[in-house]
Amino acid sequence: MLLNPGPAVTSDRVHRAIAGPDLCHREPEYTDLFDRVRRKLLVVGGVGDDWAVVLIAGSGTAAMEAMTGGFVRPGRRLLVCQNGIYGERIATIARRLGIEVAPVTAAHTEPIEPAAVAAALDAHPAIDAVAVIHHETTTGLLNPVHEIGAIADARGVPVLVDAISSFGAEELPLPGTGLDVIAGTSNKCLHGLPGVAFLLVSPRAQARAAEVPPRSLYFDIPNYLRAQERRTVPFTPAVPAIYALEAALDELLDQGIDRRRAHYRERMAYLDREFARLGLEPVVAPRDRSGSVRSLPLPADVGFEELHDAVKRDGYVVYAGLGQAAATSFRVCALGNLEIGALEGFIASLERVLVARRAGREAASPR
Amino acid sequence: MLLNPGPAVTSDRVHRAIAGPDLCHREPEYTDLFDRVRRKLLVVGGVGDDWAVVLIAGSGTAAMEAMTGGFVRPGRRLLVCQNGIYGERIATIARRLGIEVAPVTAAHTEPIEPAAVAAALDAHPAIDAVAVIHHETTTGLLNPVHEIGAIADARGVPVLVDAISSFGAEELPLPGTGLDVIAGTSNKCLHGLPGVAFLLVSPRAQARAAEVPPRSLYFDIPNYLRAQERRTVPFTPAVPAIYALEAALDELLDQGIDRRRAHYRERMAYLDREFARLGLEPVVAPRDRSGSVRSLPLPADVGFEELHDAVKRDGYVVYAGLGQAAATSFRVCALGNLEIGALEGFIASLERVLVARRAGREAASPR
Repeated sequence: MLLNPGPAVTSDRVHRAIAGPDLCHREPEYTDLFDRVRRKLLVVGGVGDDWAVVLIAGSGTAAMEAMTGGFVRPGRRLLVCQNGIYGERIATIARRLGIEVAPVTAAHTEPIEPAAVAAALDAHPAIDAVAVIHHETTTGLLNPVHEIGAIADARGVPVLVDAISSFGAEELPLPGTGLDVIAGTSNKCLHGLPGVAFLLVSPRAQARAAEVPPRSLYFDIPNYLRAQERRTVPFTPAVPAIYALEAALDELLDQGIDRRRAHYRERMAYLDREFARLGLEPVVAPRDRSGSVRSLPLPADVGFEELHDAVKRDGYVVYAGLGQAAATSFRVCALGNLEIGALEGFIASLERVLVARRAGREAASPR
Repeated sequence: MLLNPGPAVTSDRVHRAIAGPDLCHREPEYTDLFDRVRRKLLVVGGVGDDWAVVLIAGSGTAAMEAMTGGFVRPGRRLLVCQNGIYGERIATIARRLGIEVAPVTAAHTEPIEPAAVAAALDAHPAIDAVAVIHHETTTGLLNPVHEIGAIADARGVPVLVDAISSFGAEELPLPGTGLDVIAGTSNKCLHGLPGVAFLLVSPRAQARAAEVPPRSLYFDIPNYLRAQERRTVPFTPAVPAIYALEAALDELLDQGIDRRRAHYRERMAYLDREFARLGLEPVVAPRDRSGSVRSLPLPADVGFEELHDAVKRDGYVVYAGLGQAAATSFRVCALGNLEIGALEGFIASLERVLVARRAGREAASPR
């Protein structure tokens, strides 16, 4: 059972869909598939048909690179909110593409301060867009994207949101919020399989993209949009992953978006209760926690490898901390097609590791 | 039946493989999968373990962009051989990445002249690499990559080969040929499904890549190689497409590479005989033709849409010409899991269209 932050456990329906028929993407059957997936993504995003959808064959980082390079005009800056590995990744991408970065930072366990974003925008009038990670998968922290959106919108600056590990699971209202570009992927909270990522692009951001000389061919957003107008695609799409994405979107819409979100909250509430009982306190404060990822301190004397291998013997895959945090923390993620009942076995497995460790420590240090 | 230049008709084995289990790419199960696929790609390439394999989640164009940006040092040039849409695509990618291009051109129906490459290399000492399309899918033309490789090698310049629609089907010896980087994709002559592309990188080119400041994060080749050394991956791989690729490689190695190539030749010889009988003469001379793609003149008074729709009613998908050639030509491609017998139905369908058209013309213009 995968308790890593995506790719997630997916349903039989999704697995059956990915094995669908061979298809030439220049045929109307592909255009129809794309149209259906596009409409379903817009429904999940809660936006109208005036928003564009770009499907990119690639991982979430491909969508991040397309978003980062696509909306900042030459000679202007990108304000990047950085409080985790993914915010840092956007800054790295921007610099490699020749885009000057204005960073707004916070500790990895703290959300970005909206006031700091306002101050940076006011200090640097050449800022052309704000980039922020909605759900920092590094720690399981949600950034206040709507407060940041309001601040940027008041100054006429579009906001680019990495929603790769939040789209479909976290509340993310879009119309009228100043959030203009949303990067997502098939294989996290949407419960599809890896291979396709996407951008949702507001009308304002579509106009902006048209003003940006392309920094890439593969990530040339206006090129994707022009191809759509001709009912075609610029490059070979990952058709099987799109089949799986459609099945996953159908599953989500059948369940209902609100019910999906409630399921995420219930599942995480169960895990949080059990973590508290086991003495594991997530590194992020309760008000900032996401509905799918927890970063937890490694118990004293337990290395990640030992913990990982012990619970994996019982069938559960947990994830290492990122970067320096790997030595002191581990991550448990509950996304995908997982029922709460299925998590009970994981908690029992984790508890066995902790109890055995405690017994070992007590035996090793007699009073 | 798909007679477009990939994605191709794939086997049940490949379709079953893509529906394989959910997998976290940070687990050793993924590293083992990658190692197996890597070794099998090296076998198909005929190269040793000193060559590196980079798997990129994305289409063939993603591999082209990674190859184009990854081996030219700042301030130097890329010689680009251009005699079709894909050569032009490499030049476009290079310019967008800020790489100056030295073009060597030929007509779309003519191979690149090796002597012209030699002359350009001698005229521009700042050329850091040569890029050439092995099989120009625009027209079904093979470029003389080995002659170009020898010329570049004599001058110490590495050659980057787009083998996207040739790898697995055309003869492409690599060791000692001066061909240093090979871009390929899962879903053409390897008979896998779309979602993953790859580069094979010679030892010399690995050293060169390390000297090139990255122009992208997603296409940062040394980053992929460093991650491999740590037995991990930088970004979420398209695991299902890699499952399918492994099944496709197993199918190829079970059949035998020579037998696969012979099958391509036999299939194309059948089509060429039938095209000649129907009065359709490919636009490329026989000596330059590939084993999988033919660009054919549209018969008088037959538009592509009409031809496409008529044969599609019988179950066969043919492909339009690219760019301006769309008005005057169409393409028939035989790659993938297609037996010669299965092509007989297509020829019969094509013949019905041509006979009906001829009868219509004769009825419309009585003597």
